[in-house]
Amino acid sequence: MNELDKPSELSEFPVIVSLPVLWGDQDSFGHVNNVVHIRWFESGRVAYMAQAGFPIVRPEAGGYGPILASITCHYRRQLSFPDTVLVGSRVTRFGRTSMTVEHAVYSQSLAALAADGQSIVVMFDYAAGKSIPVPAEVRAAIERLENKSY
Amino acid sequence: MNELDKPSELSEFPVIVSLPVLWGDQDSFGHVNNVVHIRWFESGRVAYMAQAGFPIVRPEAGGYGPILASITCHYRRQLSFPDTVLVGSRVTRFGRTSMTVEHAVYSQSLAALAADGQSIVVMFDYAAGKSIPVPAEVRAAIERLENKSY
Amino acid sequence: MNELDKPSELSEFPVIVSLPVLWGDQDSFGHVNNVVHIRWFESGRVAYMAQAGFPIVRPEAGGYGPILASITCHYRRQLSFPDTVLVGSRVTRFGRTSMTVEHAVYSQSLAALAADGQSIVVMFDYAAGKSIPVPAEVRAAIERLENKSY
Amino acid sequence: MNELDKPSELSEFPVIVSLPVLWGDQDSFGHVNNVVHIRWFESGRVAYMAQAGFPIVRPEAGGYGPILASITCHYRRQLSFPDTVLVGSRVTRFGRTSMTVEHAVYSQSLAALAADGQSIVVMFDYAAGKSIPVPAEVRAAIERLENKSY
Repeated sequence: MNELDKPSELSEFPVIVSLPVLWGDQDSFGHVNNVVHIRWFESGRVAYMAQAGFPIVRPEAGGYGPILASITCHYRRQLSFPDTVLVGSRVTRFGRTSMTVEHAVYSQSLAALAADGQSIVVMFDYAAGKSIPVPAEVRAAIERLENKSY
Repeated sequence: MNELDKPSELSEFPVIVSLPVLWGDQDSFGHVNNVVHIRWFESGRVAYMAQAGFPIVRPEAGGYGPILASITCHYRRQLSFPDTVLVGSRVTRFGRTSMTVEHAVYSQSLAALAADGQSIVVMFDYAAGKSIPVPAEVRAAIERLENKSY
Repeated sequence: MNELDKPSELSEFPVIVSLPVLWGDQDSFGHVNNVVHIRWFESGRVAYMAQAGFPIVRPEAGGYGPILASITCHYRRQLSFPDTVLVGSRVTRFGRTSMTVEHAVYSQSLAALAADGQSIVVMFDYAAGKSIPVPAEVRAAIERLENKSY
Repeated sequence: MNELDKPSELSEFPVIVSLPVLWGDQDSFGHVNNVVHIRWFESGRVAYMAQAGFPIVRPEAGGYGPILASITCHYRRQLSFPDTVLVGSRVTRFGRTSMTVEHAVYSQSLAALAADGQSIVVMFDYAAGKSIPVPAEVRAAIERLENKSY
């Protein structure tokens, strides 16, 4: 996304994906259902990893990859169709085997943040079936993307 | 659910719903996708409110109802098809306008908890478009269901 | 969508929506799951009706609206993330109380049609709870949009 | 499912799966959204293949498996939460490389068929990336399950 088009609410987020709200995303209360935000967060994480240089590969390919340990979402405003959301993602913290991804969902119709939250992602060795320390190459790539050191 | 069939991991949860894992719940990693747990939590909340005597009604009916303010899920074990999960719900805390619902997802195939988390639910006056103090009747009904005072 | 950007495979479709394939749209076979195409068709129908001047309203608003009587989808090519699909919609036929909507899904990654199909939509009087003849205003609006008479 | 509990509307279907309608299956019209039926059909197909002795395996395992060529669903009655549906599946026809699966969705709340339809499933050699004649072992297993010859 062009920096000029990025709303100030997302200025700290290096990776933004633009996603349409679908009519079918709404539940019987007439608003976007709470599971949809979690799907948006996922799309944001996947885009983040791809932009950092680590596209998501299927476990069959071997090697390591991120798996989700926990997720939190704060629902700030009710959304409805039609709308387009901008989903921002950034890494705010590294643990030994994990990293924290912050998410923000900006509604273009409301011109406001509609939700935010965070994911804890663990680096996982698919063949060994266990978590591993965050590889130095992943951390370095994220530091380049975020333009800072953790 | 018959108390005799309830796994000990769910013994503190007064409301349990049994839900099948669907083949289509799995994502390209071959495990149940993280959004599915959030849908399970929702099904648990809806069942809880119904069992307390407050079935979910659509906002058009007027009156008040619960809306979701935030959700957290901890993914403990990877699930896959086929399986059946038991989703436990209980209310652990009341705020002035909110209540905290704890969730636990038990996998029958794994005979273990697969996920847990919590929702913060706010009581909302649909006509007025704003949150309201938890009505005394709701609190009383939940105290009966939980067999305790908050 | 700008006519110049419209692929020739969609040249007969007056309404096109562009939708991103999400990572989570993929099932455990590693391809976009078959239910996702049905959601895309729905998004196409909703956009079509809006562009014809009949945005989808909730039944509570009274009046009439379209309900889905049947759907068919032919899966032509397997899709995967990342990709963007263009979903074309057009009305090809009117019955007394129904109309036939044709759908086509074009994959930008494959530069080819990935799926096509049709929906039969029935005009429904929400208050009366029964189907009604297609209102003359709906038919006229669609004839304008399609630039033809049926 | 016990034959005694099987509704007469499903008497011709050798494989039945029982699935709960979830609150979140409903869309903003307050009824079960049309994509949900397609997910139910999928769950029926998967159960059918498993009961015939061919559980769904991921393509990485090599060999062959069924892929969906087309699907049709007729929506007969509007469904809503709470309800439980019984989804019947049967194979009605073999082509050289394909078979036709018929689906029926019975609503326990309505005590009536709510939807029916069919899938065309093609046998696919994952390694070769092309369809293959329906293997004799698959056809024999289905003839045993259906208790007839095609």
